[in-house]
Amino acid sequence: MAQKVYLSNYEFKEALNKYLEKIGSVFLNKEIINTEESLGRVTAEAVYSKISSPFYNCSAMDGIALHSSKTIGASEKRPVILEEGKDYIVVDTGDPVLREYDCVIMVEDIVNIDQNKIQIYKSAAPWQNIRPLGEDIVENQLIIPSGHAVRPVDIGAMLAGGVNTIEVYKKPLVGIIPTGTELVEPGSDLKVGDIIDFNSRVFSGQVIEYGGIPKRYGIVKDDYEVLKETLKRAVSECDIVIINAGSSAGREDFTSDLIADLGTVYIHGIAIKPGKPTIMGQIDNKPVLGIPGYPVSAYFIMEKVLKKVIEGYQGLKLKEPQRVEAILSRRIMSSLKYLEFVRMKLGYVGNKVIATPLSRGAGATMSLVRADGTLEVPQNVEGIEAGTKVEINLMRDMEEIKNTIVCIGSHDPVLDILADMLHVKSNHYYLSSAHTGSMGGIMALKNEETHIAPIHLLDMESGEYNISYINRYLKDKKIALVKGVKRIQGLIVQKGNPLSLKSISDIPAKNARFVNRQRGAGTRLLLDYYLRKLDISPERINGYEREEITHLSVAAAVASGDVDCGLGVYSAADMMGLDFIPVCNEEYDFAVPVEYLELDMIKELFQVMKSSEFLKELDKLGGYDYSDICEIVYI
Amino acid sequence: MAQKVYLSNYEFKEALNKYLEKIGSVFLNKEIINTEESLGRVTAEAVYSKISSPFYNCSAMDGIALHSSKTIGASEKRPVILEEGKDYIVVDTGDPVLREYDCVIMVEDIVNIDQNKIQIYKSAAPWQNIRPLGEDIVENQLIIPSGHAVRPVDIGAMLAGGVNTIEVYKKPLVGIIPTGTELVEPGSDLKVGDIIDFNSRVFSGQVIEYGGIPKRYGIVKDDYEVLKETLKRAVSECDIVIINAGSSAGREDFTSDLIADLGTVYIHGIAIKPGKPTIMGQIDNKPVLGIPGYPVSAYFIMEKVLKKVIEGYQGLKLKEPQRVEAILSRRIMSSLKYLEFVRMKLGYVGNKVIATPLSRGAGATMSLVRADGTLEVPQNVEGIEAGTKVEINLMRDMEEIKNTIVCIGSHDPVLDILADMLHVKSNHYYLSSAHTGSMGGIMALKNEETHIAPIHLLDMESGEYNISYINRYLKDKKIALVKGVKRIQGLIVQKGNPLSLKSISDIPAKNARFVNRQRGAGTRLLLDYYLRKLDISPERINGYEREEITHLSVAAAVASGDVDCGLGVYSAADMMGLDFIPVCNEEYDFAVPVEYLELDMIKELFQVMKSSEFLKELDKLGGYDYSDICEIVYI
Repeated sequence: MAQKVYLSNYEFKEALNKYLEKIGSVFLNKEIINTEESLGRVTAEAVYSKISSPFYNCSAMDGIALHSSKTIGASEKRPVILEEGKDYIVVDTGDPVLREYDCVIMVEDIVNIDQNKIQIYKSAAPWQNIRPLGEDIVENQLIIPSGHAVRPVDIGAMLAGGVNTIEVYKKPLVGIIPTGTELVEPGSDLKVGDIIDFNSRVFSGQVIEYGGIPKRYGIVKDDYEVLKETLKRAVSECDIVIINAGSSAGREDFTSDLIADLGTVYIHGIAIKPGKPTIMGQIDNKPVLGIPGYPVSAYFIMEKVLKKVIEGYQGLKLKEPQRVEAILSRRIMSSLKYLEFVRMKLGYVGNKVIATPLSRGAGATMSLVRADGTLEVPQNVEGIEAGTKVEINLMRDMEEIKNTIVCIGSHDPVLDILADMLHVKSNHYYLSSAHTGSMGGIMALKNEETHIAPIHLLDMESGEYNISYINRYLKDKKIALVKGVKRIQGLIVQKGNPLSLKSISDIPAKNARFVNRQRGAGTRLLLDYYLRKLDISPERINGYEREEITHLSVAAAVASGDVDCGLGVYSAADMMGLDFIPVCNEEYDFAVPVEYLELDMIKELFQVMKSSEFLKELDKLGGYDYSDICEIVYI
Repeated sequence: MAQKVYLSNYEFKEALNKYLEKIGSVFLNKEIINTEESLGRVTAEAVYSKISSPFYNCSAMDGIALHSSKTIGASEKRPVILEEGKDYIVVDTGDPVLREYDCVIMVEDIVNIDQNKIQIYKSAAPWQNIRPLGEDIVENQLIIPSGHAVRPVDIGAMLAGGVNTIEVYKKPLVGIIPTGTELVEPGSDLKVGDIIDFNSRVFSGQVIEYGGIPKRYGIVKDDYEVLKETLKRAVSECDIVIINAGSSAGREDFTSDLIADLGTVYIHGIAIKPGKPTIMGQIDNKPVLGIPGYPVSAYFIMEKVLKKVIEGYQGLKLKEPQRVEAILSRRIMSSLKYLEFVRMKLGYVGNKVIATPLSRGAGATMSLVRADGTLEVPQNVEGIEAGTKVEINLMRDMEEIKNTIVCIGSHDPVLDILADMLHVKSNHYYLSSAHTGSMGGIMALKNEETHIAPIHLLDMESGEYNISYINRYLKDKKIALVKGVKRIQGLIVQKGNPLSLKSISDIPAKNARFVNRQRGAGTRLLLDYYLRKLDISPERINGYEREEITHLSVAAAVASGDVDCGLGVYSAADMMGLDFIPVCNEEYDFAVPVEYLELDMIKELFQVMKSSEFLKELDKLGGYDYSDICEIVYI
């Protein structure tokens, strides 16, 4: 094993500034383009008008043009009669007003008396209803400055000002080289060890959003010479090149050597998380970046480094994300060694913005999809306490966040369907669910972090669902229980049930490998309830400590063959084509503070839940009884 | 004159909702596209993953995979020695971890002892550094809902989840028909009466921004049959058609008849300003809009109507503009009959956002270019008083507005150059100037609405510039006078000076047609000073009442032949190729509250003013003396 472990740990801003300074000289290539094709392009020079607009005096109204002196003394009692051709001419809006006329009377103020005679009841003032030459734009006037991204209205003003071509910065062509012997194209037949190359497609989208033009090269296997040839070609064809990945310290990670071989490596390793193994280099005067392989690391390096490189290239400061102040719902720990970017879920609950950290794994693509924003935890900060006010960089519109129902608690596949149907029905509303288990939902209600909490909590004494938990934990709040579905919980087992499991007591009996749910999940409590009832100690369950956080991921673990069984709902087993041994029926309901029942979006949600389309979906999934759906129990 | 004057005055929201309801049935055409080409497209169905990601258990680190049982008891004192092949295999990040192994130890925690032996100092926990199957995405999990605009990260998650094609709403093809005998293509040789067709190009840009695909037809002259054929063709080729203009009540405005002829007109005329003469119709089940001809009216109808039609077509709510609370600097009067959109200039001065209405003319394209936002004055509201807190819909980023130096006062062509050079030097800073004349600048300082005020105010008694005015009007403030330029004021006259004007007294003597500057302009005060000195009464000046608000527009009026002369600076005359009769030298300086001298953007501005590049530009313009530029006089 000859692995190189030598990344540096440059402070991020320092590294970036050093790099931008090094590559600064290659920037700002200009070209001349047609004004009408300049939408979104960045001006390289200030644009001054070449002609005035209007370039002659013209009528601002439909009406007649005449000399104001002919109208003197006109009144209701003594109208003035005027003759076409002799006294006036008819003009439409925009028609030129010749020098012998000095005003326009609008058509609404005119009474026709015959074919070519009219009368008026009011005298006209000189210059009324005339747009004088240059009223809008005067020749040689500044229309837009340099370094300005052209908008539709700018195109209008430039064309009106006689400017038909403008000088803009070239959009950089960004070469994207995906590397790795394990990479395969999307749509390939997959075998174990393959990784679908989706990173390079995300990069293409990001490059477009930053104003560059992406050029994706084919996947390059981990072969130094092949990669070298591809990199040479990309550098000769493009303005900026990014290589993904091979920027870490693995066996085949030789991106850094390669860049050094063909050019210069300025930085290898920055104090940022995720994103540490980043390479900033230059070959033949062109910026070359080594982007880490983990999708989340890659995303942030694109946002924080490539975006700045493209900004520099175009002489434009791209829009910064909007920011919002939020209250942190949970403590965040962070390393003193790194500037850390934490993806956050935001909820607008009870007039406060609540920010909750999402999964921090660098491989968690879905955390980027689900994120509403990011929190930057500075280097040299060890953590931030729950309850602290923090600034969040928004990844989603605040308006959308305000129109989103926050749903924290137990997971069931119907939540996804509900979220989708709500948004289809009322396209300004959203449902965002976080899967913390039923007790997590109760705690979120207690802390006023959620609008609704889906729960299925079995009272071990009474055998009743949900109500006793609300009474116990939320006694100082007014909570309604909106009835959801009765669903079948059972053992999710391999297709064909090879171990012939029949009940929970078979798990230890047949030494089946089990996968559990996380602490606080209602399904875990259900297991514990049965273990107690059956007098089985948890140590006898092989896999009691292995946790998954949704029914689907339990089913996926069974489907993979890693484990033999798990406890979950029928629909999850069915989706994965697995077998299912029913254990019991349970009540999956929604706890909602009474005040939120009045919110329009919550009303819409329960409308959807009652709708025949939704009930049809429940039938399709199977395993649900919805006989008392949306009945409200005030507690 | 057979003009039709019959527009209705529908309340805007009512009209729009009625229309959207009428055309609703044509919406939501779907198509299947490749996921990798779906950036910005709107999902027509919720997207669920087809495979898990990772779809096998894999290593989260570069290191070795092994069974944790082999590490039990390892410590600093009693390292455990392991052999490659027998005890472990080497894995890179992402490599599969076979079923016989249950953990990964990272490379940093390993010490090589020989070619295929290592030692470790710490036992490993089961599942450490392994990314289990489905850790990121579980098969059948919801990735993105329907009605969602695809972002780069969504493309990544979909491809990772094995989703290679998705169903999206079709982007509407929007036909744009410019009509009008007076219209000519940009770049044509212009003659009086021609109007450059820039509207259709602005529409193209707007359609792209709303997510549609523009298809621009050639200009159609005002001929009913030709227009009818073009409209028929556009309706058959496109999904939505807009006609511009012919929506008002002029002689050749038959768009409404034409739509009624081929289909249905639902609405003609809405209570909105600008934008009243709007037509909403439908032909062959396709939405057809008649857009007013005035550029500002057209812009708002595109924003307020076409944008909603495209939103409906794509099943997507497009982003609403950000809003900001601002203090209105001047009273706004508005008609009770209309919902009115007023373009606003915003300034961030002394921690307050100040909103000042821009020109309200429907032809003022530049007011759209210059606008930072819009204020909606509701129907049935007569006006809003100065000092009122109002909500502004932003057209520009608030961050940019905060980084903009507000400059209200006297106009000089050097301000444009200064604005541009500042932004080139420091691309996050902007200078925005409003031309209200010197006294307007003094008042803006008094009301704390501007950072700097360019002034040239001659004390009629002392003959001194600027200082006495600051002492008189701003005595309760700490103001510094930053010296600007001495500039030559004089008579701007026709090329060759056909009337042989030699001085101000020649204006009445030779009955020259004059154009004046607006009240409060320093240049107007200068004229008044000379008229008083020369004992000429203003009535003797032919055109004393005709006002322009910049030097350039005075020069443009002279160049057009409408007037014979005006008072202004040399550079304006020179830009327009006119002759110039010097009258006097005056001091054009910048009054700045002392506290603002410390703002970084103000410091940058004066750095630019002192720079040799800027002084070179002054030399190019001619007529400026900059011997004491940027000297500061504390008053």
